[in-house]
Amino acid sequence: MLTHFNEEGRAKMVDITEKKISTRVAKARSSIFMGTEVYEAIKLQNIKKGDVLSVAQVAGIMAAKQTPSLIPMCHPIPISGVNISFEWESSDKDNMELIILTEVKTVSSTGVEMEALTAASVAALTVYDMCKAIDKSMTIGSTFLLEKSGGKSGDFKRK
Amino acid sequence: MLTHFNEEGRAKMVDITEKKISTRVAKARSSIFMGTEVYEAIKLQNIKKGDVLSVAQVAGIMAAKQTPSLIPMCHPIPISGVNISFEWESSDKDNMELIILTEVKTVSSTGVEMEALTAASVAALTVYDMCKAIDKSMTIGSTFLLEKSGGKSGDFKRK
Amino acid sequence: MLTHFNEEGRAKMVDITEKKISTRVAKARSSIFMGTEVYEAIKLQNIKKGDVLSVAQVAGIMAAKQTPSLIPMCHPIPISGVNISFEWESSDKDNMELIILTEVKTVSSTGVEMEALTAASVAALTVYDMCKAIDKSMTIGSTFLLEKSGGKSGDFKRK
Amino acid sequence: MLTHFNEEGRAKMVDITEKKISTRVAKARSSIFMGTEVYEAIKLQNIKKGDVLSVAQVAGIMAAKQTPSLIPMCHPIPISGVNISFEWESSDKDNMELIILTEVKTVSSTGVEMEALTAASVAALTVYDMCKAIDKSMTIGSTFLLEKSGGKSGDFKRK
Amino acid sequence: MLTHFNEEGRAKMVDITEKKISTRVAKARSSIFMGTEVYEAIKLQNIKKGDVLSVAQVAGIMAAKQTPSLIPMCHPIPISGVNISFEWESSDKDNMELIILTEVKTVSSTGVEMEALTAASVAALTVYDMCKAIDKSMTIGSTFLLEKSGGKSGDFKRK
Amino acid sequence: MLTHFNEEGRAKMVDITEKKISTRVAKARSSIFMGTEVYEAIKLQNIKKGDVLSVAQVAGIMAAKQTPSLIPMCHPIPISGVNISFEWESSDKDNMELIILTEVKTVSSTGVEMEALTAASVAALTVYDMCKAIDKSMTIGSTFLLEKSGGKSGDFKRK
Repeated sequence: MLTHFNEEGRAKMVDITEKKISTRVAKARSSIFMGTEVYEAIKLQNIKKGDVLSVAQVAGIMAAKQTPSLIPMCHPIPISGVNISFEWESSDKDNMELIILTEVKTVSSTGVEMEALTAASVAALTVYDMCKAIDKSMTIGSTFLLEKSGGKSGDFKRK
Repeated sequence: MLTHFNEEGRAKMVDITEKKISTRVAKARSSIFMGTEVYEAIKLQNIKKGDVLSVAQVAGIMAAKQTPSLIPMCHPIPISGVNISFEWESSDKDNMELIILTEVKTVSSTGVEMEALTAASVAALTVYDMCKAIDKSMTIGSTFLLEKSGGKSGDFKRK
Repeated sequence: MLTHFNEEGRAKMVDITEKKISTRVAKARSSIFMGTEVYEAIKLQNIKKGDVLSVAQVAGIMAAKQTPSLIPMCHPIPISGVNISFEWESSDKDNMELIILTEVKTVSSTGVEMEALTAASVAALTVYDMCKAIDKSMTIGSTFLLEKSGGKSGDFKRK
Repeated sequence: MLTHFNEEGRAKMVDITEKKISTRVAKARSSIFMGTEVYEAIKLQNIKKGDVLSVAQVAGIMAAKQTPSLIPMCHPIPISGVNISFEWESSDKDNMELIILTEVKTVSSTGVEMEALTAASVAALTVYDMCKAIDKSMTIGSTFLLEKSGGKSGDFKRK
Repeated sequence: MLTHFNEEGRAKMVDITEKKISTRVAKARSSIFMGTEVYEAIKLQNIKKGDVLSVAQVAGIMAAKQTPSLIPMCHPIPISGVNISFEWESSDKDNMELIILTEVKTVSSTGVEMEALTAASVAALTVYDMCKAIDKSMTIGSTFLLEKSGGKSGDFKRK
Repeated sequence: MLTHFNEEGRAKMVDITEKKISTRVAKARSSIFMGTEVYEAIKLQNIKKGDVLSVAQVAGIMAAKQTPSLIPMCHPIPISGVNISFEWESSDKDNMELIILTEVKTVSSTGVEMEALTAASVAALTVYDMCKAIDKSMTIGSTFLLEKSGGKSGDFKRK
């Protein structure tokens, strides 16, 4: 059953007043697919001081903090740590995939799944923004929760 | 070449002072995959007054307006219209895909691709948030620009 | 005596460092008066999927979270739940009153009166915004605290 | 007919791409009723440097700028001026009414009614916040648009 | 060693999950230098109800609350009190210095140094903004942490 | 005379409705003084991918866009470009000064002095934040407008 609805059937912010405060961790991932030209531009700039990924990462961290002002029913949460890392994968050389991995922690009465997912999404959007002058057909890949721990609902690990 | 870097090789907000003001439109899409249980909960709530999609849509529209405060190198743009619509698709009955289509318009000296993409991503994240109590393994699907028109770089239509 | 002023006589954010953390609840109300035409448009749209009240409610919930960035001397508070409901009243058929009731909860060292009042005000403003194309003379009615509980100053219930 | 809904019947941000840019002005008012004790505390503090009304006014001006991030379907507008003034009225000496008058201007393709109303509401909420330690039963009075000019829908003046 | 970097060498928000919650206080200062004309305009307006310093102070308090959305690696912190005061100093009569002193408190697992510094900076910027029509050559003076207490790293007092 | 006050003597957002739209540029600077240890940590991290200055720069650019929500009487302005660069100076080897230079452009009816100053201040605060674990006694140096062009008040160049 959906929990975000009140007796009138309208959306509400779920009451977590009675939930226990505990350490909670969530990990998420997103990705962005790009052709050789964008890939090489990112790599080249990376060698100089300019670095698309470092801008994306700052954007992702700041977005994690904006999660409750973006996702209507999200509770404001005192995030206690955010870490974002990147991995490159390629099926073939004309289709590189930049994988974005986020980890968010809190000591709170609710979890940080949305913070981890929002950080991953905004990091991917930022890469798109900075490279779209080269190629507008880049695609942001699947975005999902990898795992979460802490809280009453127990641990989750994506199969 | 990446345009978002200055002479020192660091990121900058590109100078659009000389660009012409014109009407610009961008359309994007995202999606979210879900199993039967979530699908039916959304449909059921939809019959009552509560409606996951209407919350997601408000979130997407508000996120379009927050784009320049989320994406570091994005210019602040006076959005002149946002429309979000939904379509359901299913490969098989245990894997429904909710497709999110966004259209953003402006009369400005730069485009609204990022606004359309951000609206789509945040709408998808909001659906995830409201349904995650049922299933945390939902996946946000490919997110990309469908088309854009207006501006010097010309029209784009995804193949 | 006004508590929000420092020794120089200027405004300050009151020091709540020593206050105890406890569960606190506040309920507020606002309303908006409208003629038959607006009332029927809301009701009609409500029958379809579109729903002025559900947009107003999302706006109210999100505004509750923005309270400390709107009200200068308000402390940032980890809201633990928000619920908004609606009631219709009519003195006569040409003057319908939509009553907006908000309830906000927190586990914190200060109360959520301002969050409940801000949610009610912004929900009323949103109804006005969505219906003003029909009638600009709608009036937002009295807005006040209904009750609050928790905290050292004790419970309050409006007579 | 309500204009804020798309073909699916869901809320949208109305397309104003084709609307003409012109000078637009909106004036609104709100008020707050208070007893003698609060009234005298405000007056007394006003004589010193501290001044509830000047905090309320800064809050109102800043809120006018936040209108599009509070009211979901509001367009972002380049506000070109905001002025807020105050008047005192009293039916009897135990029930003073502080009237808040706002005026907002823009050169834009849509009006600033919501900005004027939001400024008035947030100014009233700020007075409540700063005086609630004395009296939680203060009531925010009727809030409405006084007049607006500019734009295709013509001028409006409340009767 | 810089603590804000992850194993890949990219910036992260430091993990404070294990840090103890305690009362923490930070004091900072900034200043703004101005000539006689600006000084007298501020003093004159101060005698009337208008007061540059009271606007600056509201701005500083509100900025303290925005610190985590301005400073990328800052943790969101539940500020429990902010106080801003002013002092005038003059080396010679054509070069007055307005000193801005801020004090921020929290009960949290990390300190409020950045909140105190941000409040001081934004208060100084606000004075500049309100007086720049008279003199654009005003200079914001040295901005630094005066002292902080609480937390594992111990107390700090600037020599 | 101070222009930010209304007839009641209270602060207002100055009416710029009648001002001409033109291209406007503002340049500002701030700086931060640090000892050898912090200087070498920044330089070392800079050689790896991690880079304090690139985080500071993203923070400065994003802060430029937040200027009207930080500085109460500032008009919202469609910034059309932001560039931030860095220079190192040293009086002696134990006191290095990192100079932060910002340039902001707009096509608008008012200038971007405050945006350039805010970007410089927030970039300096971000460097402080990321290095304060090494040394809390770093000092943010003088912050001022270097020059501005465009608009009725004419060009300004600091002597």
